[in-house]
Amino acid sequence: MSAPASALTVRIGDVERTLPTVRAGNLGRVPLVEFIGDPEFTNAAAQAMLPLIPEGTDILLTVVTNALPLTHELSDRSGLPYVCARKKRRTYMQAPLIQDVPSLSLGVAETLWLDGPHAERLRGKRVAIVQDVIASGGTAQALARFVVQSGGTVSGYLAAFRQGQPVMPVAALQNLPGRLP
Amino acid sequence: MSAPASALTVRIGDVERTLPTVRAGNLGRVPLVEFIGDPEFTNAAAQAMLPLIPEGTDILLTVVTNALPLTHELSDRSGLPYVCARKKRRTYMQAPLIQDVPSLSLGVAETLWLDGPHAERLRGKRVAIVQDVIASGGTAQALARFVVQSGGTVSGYLAAFRQGQPVMPVAALQNLPGRLP
Repeated sequence: MSAPASALTVRIGDVERTLPTVRAGNLGRVPLVEFIGDPEFTNAAAQAMLPLIPEGTDILLTVVTNALPLTHELSDRSGLPYVCARKKRRTYMQAPLIQDVPSLSLGVAETLWLDGPHAERLRGKRVAIVQDVIASGGTAQALARFVVQSGGTVSGYLAAFRQGQPVMPVAALQNLPGRLP
Repeated sequence: MSAPASALTVRIGDVERTLPTVRAGNLGRVPLVEFIGDPEFTNAAAQAMLPLIPEGTDILLTVVTNALPLTHELSDRSGLPYVCARKKRRTYMQAPLIQDVPSLSLGVAETLWLDGPHAERLRGKRVAIVQDVIASGGTAQALARFVVQSGGTVSGYLAAFRQGQPVMPVAALQNLPGRLP
């Protein structure tokens, strides 16, 4: 991992984690948030994010992969259902919606897929976009376009961490530095 | 989705779901199990799978994507940590382990990636392989090879559903037909 000097310590509720920093594409070193494999951290974040869900929200929308256990917990704790977009087409998808998004971690454009029956669940609903980290906001914008395509409306954007200056207002637990020395 | 005639109803604890059937590659029609977007079904399966965890297990190993919320819940409820292999290389991975697996749903070979620091968590541990569905067992075998590569031992294989005849013994809640008319 990184040298301890460049590590970053965050605290959510009673849970403290030292985030390693990693090189991400052309972004330089950024803190790495990993909810996958860490139920204690995931649950603390979901619990703390409950008050960030905009009033009147009917359903949550996220995208694989890192935000998936987080959104599962947030859904379970809030009682709101959730839908999850994919980053790969599956052969079983029916009339999937497609949106492109520039990816920070891979450095190339990425395609998001929303299975038709899942898009149907967003129709006429007020949808909150949920992510683990929102940085530029490019992925969040692609998710918002899914909502509009599906006939829903976006109630707001929430994330465990805001990193840098997203293009939309984001309710987050904490800010992360967008780039480290 | 499918015609009602070809749908399959399953029950886990108090939760009943009618699984749609979908065409999957050259397998014909198979039932589609979706834990993503369904916390109630996910939680029921995790709770029911607790007694299937082999005695002496130290840690769980799964792979993205459908089994991720399930394994998060199983980890949370059992108190055992978990590690998750990925299907895509991320630029931040350090000395990742690689295993190939034939994919049923995509019909092509797939590469699994296990980040080096996560592999380290398996060293010297008794590891249970967790999946949502185990069919041929090809993915489970690839995960088992990760365990051996990492210096751990496999304590057993568990899944919510067993589909057809996996090559290894699998503890599962229920059998699904491997192929439908």
